[in-house]
Amino acid sequence: MGMTMTQKIIAAHAGKSEVHAGELVNAKLDLVLGNDITTPVAINEFEKAGFDGIFNRSKIAIVLDHFVPNKDIKSAEQCKQCRTFAKSMNVENFFDVGQMGIEHALLPEKGLVGPGELVIGADSHTCTYGALGAFSTGVGSTDMAAGMATGELWFKVPAAIRFVLTGKPGRWVSGKDVILHIIGKIGVDGALYRSMEFTGPGCAHLTMDDRLCICNMAIEAGGKNGIFEVDDVTVDYITGRVKRPYQVYRADPDAEYEQTIEIDLGEIKPTVSFPHQPDNTRTIDKVGDVKIDQVVIGSCTNGRLSDLAAAAEIFKGRKVADGVRAIIIPATQHIYKEAMKRGYLETFIDAGCVVSTPTCGPCLGGYMGILADGERAVTTTNRNFVGRMGHPGSEVYLASPAVAAASAVAGKIAGPDSICKEAV
Amino acid sequence: MGMTMTQKIIAAHAGKSEVHAGELVNAKLDLVLGNDITTPVAINEFEKAGFDGIFNRSKIAIVLDHFVPNKDIKSAEQCKQCRTFAKSMNVENFFDVGQMGIEHALLPEKGLVGPGELVIGADSHTCTYGALGAFSTGVGSTDMAAGMATGELWFKVPAAIRFVLTGKPGRWVSGKDVILHIIGKIGVDGALYRSMEFTGPGCAHLTMDDRLCICNMAIEAGGKNGIFEVDDVTVDYITGRVKRPYQVYRADPDAEYEQTIEIDLGEIKPTVSFPHQPDNTRTIDKVGDVKIDQVVIGSCTNGRLSDLAAAAEIFKGRKVADGVRAIIIPATQHIYKEAMKRGYLETFIDAGCVVSTPTCGPCLGGYMGILADGERAVTTTNRNFVGRMGHPGSEVYLASPAVAAASAVAGKIAGPDSICKEAV
Repeated sequence: MGMTMTQKIIAAHAGKSEVHAGELVNAKLDLVLGNDITTPVAINEFEKAGFDGIFNRSKIAIVLDHFVPNKDIKSAEQCKQCRTFAKSMNVENFFDVGQMGIEHALLPEKGLVGPGELVIGADSHTCTYGALGAFSTGVGSTDMAAGMATGELWFKVPAAIRFVLTGKPGRWVSGKDVILHIIGKIGVDGALYRSMEFTGPGCAHLTMDDRLCICNMAIEAGGKNGIFEVDDVTVDYITGRVKRPYQVYRADPDAEYEQTIEIDLGEIKPTVSFPHQPDNTRTIDKVGDVKIDQVVIGSCTNGRLSDLAAAAEIFKGRKVADGVRAIIIPATQHIYKEAMKRGYLETFIDAGCVVSTPTCGPCLGGYMGILADGERAVTTTNRNFVGRMGHPGSEVYLASPAVAAASAVAGKIAGPDSICKEAV
Repeated sequence: MGMTMTQKIIAAHAGKSEVHAGELVNAKLDLVLGNDITTPVAINEFEKAGFDGIFNRSKIAIVLDHFVPNKDIKSAEQCKQCRTFAKSMNVENFFDVGQMGIEHALLPEKGLVGPGELVIGADSHTCTYGALGAFSTGVGSTDMAAGMATGELWFKVPAAIRFVLTGKPGRWVSGKDVILHIIGKIGVDGALYRSMEFTGPGCAHLTMDDRLCICNMAIEAGGKNGIFEVDDVTVDYITGRVKRPYQVYRADPDAEYEQTIEIDLGEIKPTVSFPHQPDNTRTIDKVGDVKIDQVVIGSCTNGRLSDLAAAAEIFKGRKVADGVRAIIIPATQHIYKEAMKRGYLETFIDAGCVVSTPTCGPCLGGYMGILADGERAVTTTNRNFVGRMGHPGSEVYLASPAVAAASAVAGKIAGPDSICKEAV
């Protein structure tokens, strides 16, 4: 029996010619990631375990992104602990305020993840990098500590679900709509501990930003990881970024999948996840009349340049509705600057949005747009659990940047088509 | 005996031909201001007192600026309360996220304060508007409540100190250096309940931004208010902004001043307030070797366009020092956009700064740059009390935008001259 893409990467990193779903293997790590929330816990574990050094200063990335610039004394102390550790261990890829961005946007941008690599991160959305053909997955802070010290970690080899993508997405359908559609279809535990392997001719119509978004939310279906086949889109993206040699792994023709699901991208409509689970989806034609108070466009899921471009297209010449706050958060300093150059930020300001410095902030109820009791937000982030963005009595609706922008203009959940057919 | 500028404005608003220092008078209000921290308290008092309406929907300004976009559930609830009140009372000048900015930068920009007007605000830095030849002063939230309901308030007529400004400030000397110099000279209670009246030929060399900064910090010398004579600079600034008729009040030749202090602007050097009081000043040549962790350029004191211009001049082609975070906060959406157009924001990003949406944030330890134990910040804000920007073990150094930017580049407190003599 052959192996899936994920299994092949794990086998290679475990020094084995073959691995099987369910098998426990010890694998070498190409990158160990932590942020300002999880790294302090990992440092404490690292010290408690008596480790006195890291396995490779170039293969650890610490990104301060969740609560920076610091939202309170506690987060300031956490960042200080990260800084001190990074300095003492001479960590090469330490990203502080000003060099920074949201980890899962920053690492691909900086070329820190390449095809065929094995990445762990003490953050559940580490699965993002599967878009580049890597096996990457979220771990706890204790695993991060062990990973930093030894450069290895035990994994249970995941079984897989194959998603065969066909067709071409319509005008306002993005990676976000694809993954919300899939999560709506299979449920929040539909891919529990499985690899979600994306393949098929439809992939060619998905940009790298689409793929990063799709893999980012694999965890919201319970997936161990999401992964795309390496193709021209991948190579285009990593050219100039990933400067070391890399290996491309393709699934064997007889690879075992627990399930194969066909998705016709051409059939997908803009999709919104209603409270309080990502799988509670409705297509835009079925959303009804939901008045909103706030819109957030950003995060590791949807704070990339193409996301801001889609939002800018909607906001251009239009205004945020009365009574709605619209918060735009470019995911990295590079994206911020590029969005500025292209005039997107000016469009946002003219529309009545505010533009934040890169931060995870509101996505996990940190800061920069926390909700009061009874308030509703349409947001391009990844989770809409009870109280995720503030008061337990608030409501979070997940959507694409285009839907979020259209909703900001309409003052209620709305599709881009309903806005863009109006003359500006 | 004649009257000072302040006394003349109070007399006119009290319907009297003459008032004297120490006299209690009831005066009519041209504007009542509150923010997201103080307005909720005022609303509670307003309701407790049984008031059922506001005196004039055009003469109340509510600005959400301190902890917005909301930093936590509590601030979200406070903003919600402000929104609900503003809507129910049909308050004309309600500024929410996206239309907003820091109150004391926003109100002059929007033409909401003019010469000869009487303004109260439930924020201690309401004294800023003296730069426009208005009498404006900070009050408590109870006074704000009464002011909103009745349009009048009792005042004790302040005695005055006259500052006669002569000479011309040198290359890197701004309004911030002037007011820090003055506070250093007279102390944090040197003008207790006095008007600080600025006059003399040196005024002509101070821009409106300089004057707004100087009056803003009158409260840091204990002043009831600061006020500048109306001149060409004032008229230039308000033209196109203040569209209603206004009255210019000049001090009588025989006005009584408790003290007259001459300040030669040409003698002032860039000045820094060391912890933990604004009057603990040192000139830049006497600062010694103080390593820093963070720089903040923004606030109602120094977040205006000329402040960002000065900072951009320093940062252009240079980098923020290793280990320093530099946070730039344009004070209003308008300033943000203008700074973007002029290339300042790009310069900041290239230098390794982050650019925040307008907010008071870190100035009062709110969010967007809170300090950990033992950390030091050079900041263009207005107060350096123990724990003002975070941990009680942190230190805050007050300075001009030019000094703050130079310090960010140097990694320690430094004057612009020491940076700008180096070739880029």
